[in-house]
Amino acid sequence: MTQTWVYNFGNGRADGDASMKDLLGGKGANLAEMSSLGLPVPAGFTIPTEVCTYYYAHDCTYPESLKSDVQNAIAEVERQMGAEFGSVDNPLLVSVRSGARVSMPGMMDTVLNLGLNDETVEGLARRSNDARFAWDSYRRFIQMYSDVVLGVSHHEFEDILEDTKERLGCDADTDLSADHWREIVAEYKELVERELRRPFPEDVHEQLWGAIGAVFGSWQTPRAVTYRRIHSIPEEWGTAVNIQSMVFGNMGEDCATGVAFTRDPSTGDNYFYGEYLINAQGEDVVAGIRTPQSLTIKGREMEGSDLPSMEETMPNVFKQLDDVRQTLEAHYKDMQDIEFTVQQGQLYMLQTRAGKRTAAAALKIAVDMVSENVITKQEALLRLDANALDQLLHPTLDPYAAREVLGKGLPASPGAASGKLVFTADDAEAAAKNEEDVILVRTETSPEDIHGMHAARGILTSRGGMTSHAAVVARGMGRACVAGASSINIDLKNKRLSVMSQVFCEGDVVTIDGSTGEIMKGHVPTLQPKLSGDFETIMNWADDMRRMHVRTNAETPDDAKNAISFGAEGIGLCRTEHMFFDPDRIQKVREMILATNKAGRDEALSYLLPEQRSDFVALFSIMDGLPVTIRLLDPPLHEFLPHEDKDVEQFAQSAGVDVSEVKRRLQELAESNPMLGHRGCRLGLTYPEIYAMQARAIIEAAVEVGAVPEIMIPLIVSHKELELLKSVIDETAQDVFREKGKTVEYLVGTMIEIPRAALMADEIAQTAEFFSFGTNDLTQTALGMSRDDAGSFLPFYVDRGVFSQDPFVSLDQEGVGQLVDMASQRGRSVRPDIKLGICGEHGGDPRSIDFFERVGLSYVSCSPFRVPIARLAAAQAAIRKSGLRH
Amino acid sequence: MTQTWVYNFGNGRADGDASMKDLLGGKGANLAEMSSLGLPVPAGFTIPTEVCTYYYAHDCTYPESLKSDVQNAIAEVERQMGAEFGSVDNPLLVSVRSGARVSMPGMMDTVLNLGLNDETVEGLARRSNDARFAWDSYRRFIQMYSDVVLGVSHHEFEDILEDTKERLGCDADTDLSADHWREIVAEYKELVERELRRPFPEDVHEQLWGAIGAVFGSWQTPRAVTYRRIHSIPEEWGTAVNIQSMVFGNMGEDCATGVAFTRDPSTGDNYFYGEYLINAQGEDVVAGIRTPQSLTIKGREMEGSDLPSMEETMPNVFKQLDDVRQTLEAHYKDMQDIEFTVQQGQLYMLQTRAGKRTAAAALKIAVDMVSENVITKQEALLRLDANALDQLLHPTLDPYAAREVLGKGLPASPGAASGKLVFTADDAEAAAKNEEDVILVRTETSPEDIHGMHAARGILTSRGGMTSHAAVVARGMGRACVAGASSINIDLKNKRLSVMSQVFCEGDVVTIDGSTGEIMKGHVPTLQPKLSGDFETIMNWADDMRRMHVRTNAETPDDAKNAISFGAEGIGLCRTEHMFFDPDRIQKVREMILATNKAGRDEALSYLLPEQRSDFVALFSIMDGLPVTIRLLDPPLHEFLPHEDKDVEQFAQSAGVDVSEVKRRLQELAESNPMLGHRGCRLGLTYPEIYAMQARAIIEAAVEVGAVPEIMIPLIVSHKELELLKSVIDETAQDVFREKGKTVEYLVGTMIEIPRAALMADEIAQTAEFFSFGTNDLTQTALGMSRDDAGSFLPFYVDRGVFSQDPFVSLDQEGVGQLVDMASQRGRSVRPDIKLGICGEHGGDPRSIDFFERVGLSYVSCSPFRVPIARLAAAQAAIRKSGLRH
Repeated sequence: MTQTWVYNFGNGRADGDASMKDLLGGKGANLAEMSSLGLPVPAGFTIPTEVCTYYYAHDCTYPESLKSDVQNAIAEVERQMGAEFGSVDNPLLVSVRSGARVSMPGMMDTVLNLGLNDETVEGLARRSNDARFAWDSYRRFIQMYSDVVLGVSHHEFEDILEDTKERLGCDADTDLSADHWREIVAEYKELVERELRRPFPEDVHEQLWGAIGAVFGSWQTPRAVTYRRIHSIPEEWGTAVNIQSMVFGNMGEDCATGVAFTRDPSTGDNYFYGEYLINAQGEDVVAGIRTPQSLTIKGREMEGSDLPSMEETMPNVFKQLDDVRQTLEAHYKDMQDIEFTVQQGQLYMLQTRAGKRTAAAALKIAVDMVSENVITKQEALLRLDANALDQLLHPTLDPYAAREVLGKGLPASPGAASGKLVFTADDAEAAAKNEEDVILVRTETSPEDIHGMHAARGILTSRGGMTSHAAVVARGMGRACVAGASSINIDLKNKRLSVMSQVFCEGDVVTIDGSTGEIMKGHVPTLQPKLSGDFETIMNWADDMRRMHVRTNAETPDDAKNAISFGAEGIGLCRTEHMFFDPDRIQKVREMILATNKAGRDEALSYLLPEQRSDFVALFSIMDGLPVTIRLLDPPLHEFLPHEDKDVEQFAQSAGVDVSEVKRRLQELAESNPMLGHRGCRLGLTYPEIYAMQARAIIEAAVEVGAVPEIMIPLIVSHKELELLKSVIDETAQDVFREKGKTVEYLVGTMIEIPRAALMADEIAQTAEFFSFGTNDLTQTALGMSRDDAGSFLPFYVDRGVFSQDPFVSLDQEGVGQLVDMASQRGRSVRPDIKLGICGEHGGDPRSIDFFERVGLSYVSCSPFRVPIARLAAAQAAIRKSGLRH
Repeated sequence: MTQTWVYNFGNGRADGDASMKDLLGGKGANLAEMSSLGLPVPAGFTIPTEVCTYYYAHDCTYPESLKSDVQNAIAEVERQMGAEFGSVDNPLLVSVRSGARVSMPGMMDTVLNLGLNDETVEGLARRSNDARFAWDSYRRFIQMYSDVVLGVSHHEFEDILEDTKERLGCDADTDLSADHWREIVAEYKELVERELRRPFPEDVHEQLWGAIGAVFGSWQTPRAVTYRRIHSIPEEWGTAVNIQSMVFGNMGEDCATGVAFTRDPSTGDNYFYGEYLINAQGEDVVAGIRTPQSLTIKGREMEGSDLPSMEETMPNVFKQLDDVRQTLEAHYKDMQDIEFTVQQGQLYMLQTRAGKRTAAAALKIAVDMVSENVITKQEALLRLDANALDQLLHPTLDPYAAREVLGKGLPASPGAASGKLVFTADDAEAAAKNEEDVILVRTETSPEDIHGMHAARGILTSRGGMTSHAAVVARGMGRACVAGASSINIDLKNKRLSVMSQVFCEGDVVTIDGSTGEIMKGHVPTLQPKLSGDFETIMNWADDMRRMHVRTNAETPDDAKNAISFGAEGIGLCRTEHMFFDPDRIQKVREMILATNKAGRDEALSYLLPEQRSDFVALFSIMDGLPVTIRLLDPPLHEFLPHEDKDVEQFAQSAGVDVSEVKRRLQELAESNPMLGHRGCRLGLTYPEIYAMQARAIIEAAVEVGAVPEIMIPLIVSHKELELLKSVIDETAQDVFREKGKTVEYLVGTMIEIPRAALMADEIAQTAEFFSFGTNDLTQTALGMSRDDAGSFLPFYVDRGVFSQDPFVSLDQEGVGQLVDMASQRGRSVRPDIKLGICGEHGGDPRSIDFFERVGLSYVSCSPFRVPIARLAAAQAAIRKSGLRH
């Protein structure tokens, strides 16, 4: 057989199948697959993408045999549909659509009803016994074809329609009769002739080739070219053209159209869930003009509806449709979202695709399909959207509740929350003591606000991104947070918030949805999360299949307990500085910072030592043998000092020092770029007594409880820093062992969070016993982007496709990922069994977790509420990597 | 011959030579070399480093044959010196010194006069005919040996000496007679026996082995171990031991000691330059108690001294020494710094090493030695310290002038300057108009201060590092600058500066030395730079031999002309934003920033367009066909806005907007980490009209003058940014070409200054026609260190050897260098002829330039005053790389 340029489908067979998306485009491959399954698909054919490639490689001409191939394909469609293209008596009508490998804006829209002309329209009228339907279809075709193929703006057609309706005194299209439509058709054709100086094509083959040419031409429109450039879609992919016979659900009472899900997409229950309308077109079901009716008796009863179900009105067709449902689920092994049309008692399938579903439904369907032996556990896990588990762990807005949206920020920490507005952390704490629900509003938050964030139901900020302080801390605590809502104006001094010319004062109630970023007026009811047995089942399967461990980022006993209940297998990041903000301690921390010499610092540190030790005793006890990685002091010292005048005065008074002295020290410590300043191990090296105190607290606690702590040094860029600091820790440990007459094991490792650390990882691994990738800072430094300041340009970057995703949310695998990969390899080259983990925000992001599995990290660590997501994502990554999907 | 563990030297031969530093240590190799040259070196031998390695590998024992080898070596020394170790009649005395490959603190000091005991001291007294000398030497030996070998603190010996002098009523050691010293020796020995419970060793062999053991033992003292760890000196290197016979310049009037340079180290003139003292020890020459005398008659006459020269007092020995001078210069092919002793009419050479010299002398010596056919041009160039050329280009302090140093900052921009203190840029400008010399004092400078920096003689800041704004701009302008002088307190409000409890007000005169960082009270006279013909000669040789081009960083016509006069071959970095700070323009720039929409920005930009164009016309005309790389706007917008309240008000008034509006915008633009914020191409992408205006100004100017501009986009991290911006430039260029009816060529390239750009350099090079490494920002991001904030920890880092040099001054080759190398390779893999340059501060640093030559960059670009340094350094790098030293 010589090469053919067309791929037919219909009547239980097809030349192509679902695997041939490169050649047939997504749509064409899908229609072929359904047809091969023996489902009643209206016959048609696909002109493959290679014709598009040929077209542009040969000066916009077609392969020689294409004409005859299309001729043959049309003949086959005519045979199957028992109609004839261009026949006056029994005309075949077709749709023409573009179909690239991936869906792409800027490509040609659909042309429907192609094959109508002044003669065939009469045939359609006769066959359908409905002249109005025929002429309405004809004028729709002229308008659509003129717009997308001939380039005559659709506005001009609408003007004609409006004028006619006005002249006749009609309000709606339905008031127009067949004759009215016939007149409008005449006017439409005159318009086209006037604009183009040639008549609207009456020849159906000319119509067809015009549409095919328009599809190929649309591949090179500026909009399509730009889109491809931004999304890195190669020009040589090209587009396919799909030509399919038309079917009509609006040709009478034995016609219908509908949409359905093979299972309930809200609950996952295994029953046929869908709607239909008799004598209607597809868009009528969703347009809301007529009330759609349930497909099944069960559905009708559940809704309490009086309208008869399809099961009752068209029992035979329904039976056929229900069989299709079984066939599709058995074939695709997943819940399907389908569209169908019934034309004169004959069922036609127009589409099937995997159905969207709620997180709860997704779990139930996955678990059910495994017990039905439809899919394996691995398939069940791979099918789930790990991120969607968030829906199950946080309150969600009641979907039926009314809401007035005031504005939108970033969906920084999931969950919905309502409460009275407060503007300071202290106010939040006071209100919480009165058992009032509050939303804490700040321009941006700082470590000083932590007690208020804990007391609040939700946090709203006008600055900062997805990984701002507010976002990170809120996610850690499981509080709802909307961050960087730049459309709201916050007046902290007067405790007022204004948005869209409305002003809200302290005590006014708002609702925020941290999963969407929406800010709403008043109290919007929420639904509390409920975890089903399916959740537990899925988690158990995931735990069986993952290789990476999942730890949590936590420092308080509450967070640690919470994380363990979510399945955390250790602490990957305990930020010791968070322990310094306790109101009893911050005073001593500040005194330490203000001390002008080591003796002064030692005095303050000796107060903090027993406090830190008791923190660690508590954590080690809760974690009960699970690994705990403790990061020594990381933020710059100025983060601990008061900044507002009144706080400075208050502190100076209680510390017995001069206000000017505090201010002088504040100025001395101020930094141009604190992110790149005097912090992390740079503090540890210049003030070794601080790290010595922390090391002592950790080792003493470990000796008391019998734990094996992992002590982590932040911000390392050179092995020499690590060696100097490790010797401080080792000496401290030896002192403690001598004093207590008891030893414990402990590890000393480092964050890899600065590009130089990744570059020098082999040298560093000679001393470091583990690496933990701090991908937040590594992203900031490798990209030269402050996450706190990126709000003014990063959305634009994601929009224009410079990054496919916010690199602070999902790891920039091709850039920052190189550093992670490089450091892992270099670390292992020196210390083959080095423990490699990640404790940045990306530790809870499924796409990033997939990358970490490929690189071979030992564990990921994330905020407690993301632990289940990470467990599932780690399992998915392991399954994908092993290639064992069955 | 079986292995011998000792290497003898003396009497015109040696077992070793200068190339054997690994085995013999630096000192041992050097003594061997001199001996082989036939110079009169006191005989001795070296126990090599491999014995040290053996010692630690074998539980602190020596190789079996070492004892007999040392015995034989001693016998050889005895033979050569005509004396006997331990002989009462004619005792041989030796010195014992450690000698590692590199000089290392913490290692054992010298033991002199070893071989003295109660019997041999009498022999020494008889042979020298000077009992006082003999007993003084003995007590010195006991004290030294007890301290460094036996571990008895030298304080206790000094107490005995002080007590004796007090008892006798003597003031100086010279008042003590032979008998006094004899008594003191007895007391010393009692002290040792009391402390150690065993007598001071009388046996000379026991003394010798004690000293050898002490040298090897000192390899593992904590101080030595720490030093090695910090400086990455491998433990297995070990130390050698040098044992050399003693000679004495203080045994009578036929004895002398002296130091000399083979040429004048100040001017480079080819005559014998040195000092000596009769009947003296080495330390007497430098101690300043007696006035040293000139070696030569010419020297004595030039100094106008009455004291006779050695040429006159010891003509024979002088003749011999002058021969040594010839021999050493001929052998080492360099000016030498030598030490010698004359013992009873016999000359002994104790040391030779390359002599330190002024920059002017270095040039003269190099040029002279080439014309004397002693060295090649390549050798001449390699020998010069490129950095030292700075001395020749800036005013220096008169070395003979008195000075009162008030404090010290960083030597941020070379040159010395005196002037009245001013505290604002405007005051500096006003004073300059009155032709007053001023020093501008600021906490730190910002772009708003540039006119004041230009008007001042020197700049003094209390904050910021070697690459702070003040330092970079001052170097560019050739102004002296002392930066980051944290010991001074600046009170800008009251225009006062206080340091060491002295207060200076506006108008008080100070002097700063930007080459040393010193701040001095009052006016210290300076010497103006003078360029000799030698400078020109050296520069011509360098230009012949370098491969890399040298460009300059400049944006003003003055700087460009200046750079050309220093030999710049183009502009590697023209920072367009510096052109925005002109008082006439800044108002429009600020209006542009405050505009709330594109139309407002366009209006301000249309004012700036002709201004920028005329800047470029001027630059292109001056550069006259040399390449000019222009960087589009880089700093964040807030850098252009006024910050002080009074400036804000003034601006708001003249712009006709509300003060609150300006403040609102200021707050909106404020950033937590401006270095990582909304700047560079991020501005170009979000406000494309700014880059479009700049591109238009460049292209219009290029069309007018006929230049080929290189347009550079800053802060690129992804090829997509570059593609989007290149299309803005290309469209603008096409518009200009159409309008002018004339085209020019132009290049579009990118800075590589963010780690991700280096990682993605292959993708970026598909669009970028050149790369310019912005190593300042690349260092900041790769190390996670803000150069403005590093002052609080970086000095500590350099001190403790974490970095061998300040990475903002000299490129961190092993870390940041990996990124430069990687980006160069990846860039070339896609575009083999890609032009690669560097425009960071490192472009003027010789050590970094050597690295850039090895990586194969096309050019370096530096501030105008560093162009000569870069030319020489590039030649040195090329010579080193090619290995062609002859």
